Amino acid sequence: MASPVLPSSGVLSPLGLDAVRPAPGFWGDRVRLNREVIIAHCREWMEKEGWIGNFRGDLPRRGREFSDSEVYKLLEAMAWADHPDLPELAATVAAAQEQDGYLNTRWPAARYTDFEWGHELYCYGHLIQAGVARLRRHGEDELTAVVRRAADHVCRRFMDTRETCGHPEIEMALVELYRATGAERYLEMARRLVERRGLPALADVPFGRAYFQDDLPVRRATVLRGHAVRALYLACGAVDVAVETGDGDLLAAVRAQWERTVAARTHLTGGMGSRHSDESFGDDFELPPDRAYAETCASIASIMLSHRLLLATGEARYADLAERTMYNLLATATALDGRSFFYANPLQVRVPAEPLTGVNHAAEGGLRSPWFDVSCCPSNLARTLASLPAYLATGDSRGIQIHHFTPGEIACGSLRVRVETGYPWSGTVVVRVLEPGEGRISLRVPSWARGATMSHGLDVHPGYATTEGRWRPGDEIRLELPMVPRWTFPDPRVDALRGTAAVERGPLVYCAEALGDDPPLARVGVPVAPVVEHEVDGVVELEVQARVRATAPGGWPYTAVQARDDGEDVALRLVPYHRWGNRGPATMRVWLPRA
Amino acid sequence: MASPVLPSSGVLSPLGLDAVRPAPGFWGDRVRLNREVIIAHCREWMEKEGWIGNFRGDLPRRGREFSDSEVYKLLEAMAWADHPDLPELAATVAAAQEQDGYLNTRWPAARYTDFEWGHELYCYGHLIQAGVARLRRHGEDELTAVVRRAADHVCRRFMDTRETCGHPEIEMALVELYRATGAERYLEMARRLVERRGLPALADVPFGRAYFQDDLPVRRATVLRGHAVRALYLACGAVDVAVETGDGDLLAAVRAQWERTVAARTHLTGGMGSRHSDESFGDDFELPPDRAYAETCASIASIMLSHRLLLATGEARYADLAERTMYNLLATATALDGRSFFYANPLQVRVPAEPLTGVNHAAEGGLRSPWFDVSCCPSNLARTLASLPAYLATGDSRGIQIHHFTPGEIACGSLRVRVETGYPWSGTVVVRVLEPGEGRISLRVPSWARGATMSHGLDVHPGYATTEGRWRPGDEIRLELPMVPRWTFPDPRVDALRGTAAVERGPLVYCAEALGDDPPLARVGVPVAPVVEHEVDGVVELEVQARVRATAPGGWPYTAVQARDDGEDVALRLVPYHRWGNRGPATMRVWLPRA
Repeated sequence: MASPVLPSSGVLSPLGLDAVRPAPGFWGDRVRLNREVIIAHCREWMEKEGWIGNFRGDLPRRGREFSDSEVYKLLEAMAWADHPDLPELAATVAAAQEQDGYLNTRWPAARYTDFEWGHELYCYGHLIQAGVARLRRHGEDELTAVVRRAADHVCRRFMDTRETCGHPEIEMALVELYRATGAERYLEMARRLVERRGLPALADVPFGRAYFQDDLPVRRATVLRGHAVRALYLACGAVDVAVETGDGDLLAAVRAQWERTVAARTHLTGGMGSRHSDESFGDDFELPPDRAYAETCASIASIMLSHRLLLATGEARYADLAERTMYNLLATATALDGRSFFYANPLQVRVPAEPLTGVNHAAEGGLRSPWFDVSCCPSNLARTLASLPAYLATGDSRGIQIHHFTPGEIACGSLRVRVETGYPWSGTVVVRVLEPGEGRISLRVPSWARGATMSHGLDVHPGYATTEGRWRPGDEIRLELPMVPRWTFPDPRVDALRGTAAVERGPLVYCAEALGDDPPLARVGVPVAPVVEHEVDGVVELEVQARVRATAPGGWPYTAVQARDDGEDVALRLVPYHRWGNRGPATMRVWLPRA
Repeated sequence: MASPVLPSSGVLSPLGLDAVRPAPGFWGDRVRLNREVIIAHCREWMEKEGWIGNFRGDLPRRGREFSDSEVYKLLEAMAWADHPDLPELAATVAAAQEQDGYLNTRWPAARYTDFEWGHELYCYGHLIQAGVARLRRHGEDELTAVVRRAADHVCRRFMDTRETCGHPEIEMALVELYRATGAERYLEMARRLVERRGLPALADVPFGRAYFQDDLPVRRATVLRGHAVRALYLACGAVDVAVETGDGDLLAAVRAQWERTVAARTHLTGGMGSRHSDESFGDDFELPPDRAYAETCASIASIMLSHRLLLATGEARYADLAERTMYNLLATATALDGRSFFYANPLQVRVPAEPLTGVNHAAEGGLRSPWFDVSCCPSNLARTLASLPAYLATGDSRGIQIHHFTPGEIACGSLRVRVETGYPWSGTVVVRVLEPGEGRISLRVPSWARGATMSHGLDVHPGYATTEGRWRPGDEIRLELPMVPRWTFPDPRVDALRGTAAVERGPLVYCAEALGDDPPLARVGVPVAPVVEHEVDGVVELEVQARVRATAPGGWPYTAVQARDDGEDVALRLVPYHRWGNRGPATMRVWLPRA
C-alpha cells in the first residue's frame, strides 16, 4: 500500500495513495502544485547548487554535510508522485555507492569519523524512506537495490556498536523498511539505535547533549527537548519501534512527551521550536511570537509524529494537532506559486523583510525564499505533499475514518465515497456514497467545533461522529461544523503573549498583515469584540475593531507613567496566517495586543 | 594621566586613577576584589586553557581564534592595577612577535587570509589598549615596545588598502595610542578604518553584513545593529575619531544612533543585545526578558561609549545610562566572590540552571561560570574594574564633576574632596572638602531622582547640581537623593513586557528570585501597590504584595476562556538584580506580571 507509514498493528490502519484521491480543493490543489511545480523547483536548485552533481563526483563537492539527504527527499517525493525523472536521478545516486553499501558524498575519505555532526546515518534515513516509497508505489528497481545495500551496510556496521548519529531519522526509516520487506534485522537495528541514545552515545557539544536528545534515554524523557526536528524524528522512530515490538512503556513515554510538549512548547499555529541559536524547543512556556522558530521541517515532523500516534491509539487529539499544523504551517511554508518557502515561521514580524531572489543564507521568517544554504524545508515539503493523501483518512475492519476534510474520493473495503466540501472556508462536509457497501463511516469533529451537527441535525461532539449501515449509491452524510470566528487567549504562563488575543476560525489561525506600515501594527490594540467576515476571491478574511495608539514620545522606554490607550479607531483586516507574505514585504502579527 | 580615555578636546576631561581613589564601598570593594581575586582567576584559567601557552608556542595551539585578545585584556587589567606579574606575562607575549611586528598565535602561517572571522586586528586593538594603559600608568617598557611595533606594522600594512577586521576594536585603540604618543599615523589609520567600513569592506556572511556593521558607513547609520559588542566598539572608535578630527557630523551620527538604541534596543538593566543566534541587537522593541542576551561585554562597551559621549558633550543622560549599566550589569556579571561570571544577563530565568565548576560551553545566563569557551567577559570585567575609578568623576577648568557616587577621595586642580555615602543603599551623598581650594563642585542628579535636594534643602533637578566657591577644609556639600522604591512600566511597543511592571530603587533594578520554586514565579501576579523596604546585612531588599495563581489545568494552552486571577496572596521578596544567582540555582524575574 502506498503510504509512508504502515504499522503492523494499531487501532487505525492507513489508506494509501490509491485509496485516497483528492480532487481540486485546499489540499488537492497543493498536491497538484507540488507535482507540477515544487518537485521541479527543488530539482533545479539542487542541480544549480551542485548537490546532485556531488553524486557524479566530477567537480569539487558543494553544499553542507547533509546535502545528500535533500536529493533523497526529492527522490522520495518523486517516488510518491510516480515521477518519470526518478530512474535517472536514482542512477546518479547509485553510481556513488561504494562496494560495501556505504554511500555519502561528503565523507568517503573519512567515513564515520564525526557522529555528532557528520549526518551519515541521517542521510541513510532519508535514502531508506525514498526506497520504501519506491517499493510501495512501484516495486523493486535500482533505487530500492541501493537502499537495501545501504541498510544492510548499516546493520553490519552498527548492530553491535554503541554508536549513533547526531541527527535522528534513520530509526523510523529502518522500521518502515522492515515493514516493507519483512527483514527483521532492520527493526532490530532501529530498536538498538533508539535504545542506545542517551546512554549517552555521543560526545558532548557546546549546545549540550539535549541538543541531539542524547542527554537521557527516550523512555526516560518527559518532554521533547533540544533541536526540534531531531527530537520529533526520534519520537517518530520510537513510536514505530514501540508499535512493532509491542513495547507499551516506550509508547507511553512518547505519548507523555507529546502531551507536555503540546501543553507548553507549541505555538498556536502548531509550530514547534522557539530558539534560533540551536533550533531548539526552549523551556516550557518560552513561546515568543516574534522569535518563534517553528521550523517548517519541525512542523512536518510533528505531523508525522501525530499521525503515528493517531494510528496507534485512534485518539482524535492527535488528528487535531495534525490539522492545526497542516493548515497553519504546512500550508504557510509554501508560497501560493510554489516557488518560495519559509524556513522559520514566526507569529510576528516587526520589520518587513527585503525580497530575495537567490539563496537565503539565514533562516529568518520574514520572507519566503526560493532556496536556502540549509535547504531541508523545500524538499521536505515536496515529499510530504506528495504523500499527503495518505494522511487524510484511515480504515479499520469496520469502516473508514475521515480525519481531514478535502474534496476527493476515498475507498476502503467495500466502501467508496466522495467528499464534497469547501473546507476550511465552509464548515459543511458532505460524504456521498458512490457504490453499494457496508460499514462505519466516521468523521472527525475537531476540538474547536462545539455545536457541530450531523445529517438530520443530530448534535455531535468533538472526537469522531460515526454512522453505520448498509449504503447505497447517493446516500449522504452531512457534517456541519460551526465556522464562527473565535477569540483565543493564551495561558498566562506564556509570558510573551500576556495581554494579547488571537482570532481563529475553523482550523485556521488568522493574522493582521500590513503592507507599508498601514496600519502600524506596532501600535494597534483590539477590544475583544465581534468579528466580521468578508469573502474575498474564495478566501474568508476577517475584520475586527482596533485602535491605533498615537506615536509614543520616544526616549527611555521604561517610565513611571503607564502609556495611555487613546488613539484612532480603525477596522483591522485579518487574513488566514497561511496566506500572509504573498503580497510583498509586510509586517504581521497573529497575537493582537488588547486595547 | 592614568585613564583609558583621554580626548584632546571635549566638554569634560577625565581624571585618572591617581586622582580618584575609591575607599571601601560599593565600587571600592569591587575594584579591590578585582585586584585581589579576579585578575589572578583570569590568569589561572588562561594558563590552564593554554591561551598564555600559545605565545610560548611549544605546544599545539589551543582556544578560539581570538584567544590572544584575552591575554591582552588581562595585561591591560594588570597595567591599570600596577600588577607585579605584568613584566613576565609581557615578555611571554613579546617572544611571539615576528620581525615585522606581526603578532598572532593563530594565523602565523596564513596571516590576513580571513578578515571576516580572523580577528587579527581585533586582537591588536586589545594589545594596543594594554600598551596605552602601561604607558599611562608606568611608562615605556617591553610591552609598550611590542605595542608600537604592532601598531606600526598595522599602519604599514593597512593604511592604503580597503581592508578591515570583522570585529571592530582597533579603531578606538589606535586613537588612544595617538593620544598617548602623539604619533598622527595612528589617528589616521583609525580614521580610515572607521570610514572604509560599510563601503563594504568585508565579504558577506550568513548573518548578513549588518552583523559586523559593514552594511553601511558609520556616518550613515541611524541605529546600532548587528553583533552588539562589535557595534558598540565601533561606535566608541567613531566617537574618538570624531573628537580628534573635529568631525561634528560623525559625532552627531553616533549620538543619534545612541539615542535610538537607548529608546528601542536597550533592556531595563542597561543590557544591550537580544538575540542569542548572532549576539545581535535585533529589531526595535525586540526586548525579551527571558532571552535577553545582554552580554557582559556589550554592557562594558556601552559604558565605554556613554563615557566618551559624556566627555564630549557633558550631558548627564550619558552618565545616567552608564550608571544604570554599572549597577545592573557590571555589578551583576561577577559573583560576589569574584570567581564566576555571567556571559548573558537575561531578565527572566524560568528553569534553575545546574551548577557548573568547569568551562561553560554555552553562553546562557542562568548561572555564573568560572570560565567559558569564549571567555571574553571575565577579562573584560578585569580590565574595566581595574580602570573603573577613571569613569567616576571628571574635571574641567572650573572644577570637579562627580558622576557616580562611591566613598573615596577625588583631587582636581586645587580641589581635594572626600565622598562619604552609603549609595546606592542610601541616597545621602556628602562631599567633604579636605584642603583649601577654589572652584565648582558638580554632582550628578540622576534622572530618576525627582525631589532631590542639596545642602540646605535646596531643590535640585536631574542633570548636574553645582556649587561654586572658595573652600575650606571641613566644608561639605550634602546631596539627598530620594531613595524611594518606584514602579516602572514598559513602552507598549515592547511586546515581550506587555502587562508587567518592574520595581526600581535609586539606580538599582530589583527582581524576584526563587530558590526551589518558592514562590512559583511562573504563577505570580502583582498589583501596583506600595513597596516595603527591608535591610538585610546592609542590602536593601524590597517586598511587594503578590498573588500566586492556582496551577493551570494543562493541555492545549490557547483557549476560548481567559484565565482567572484567583489564588493565594503572598508577600514577594525582591532583591537587587545584581545580587541574584549568588545563593544557588534559582528562577528569577525582573518584570512582574500584573495581577
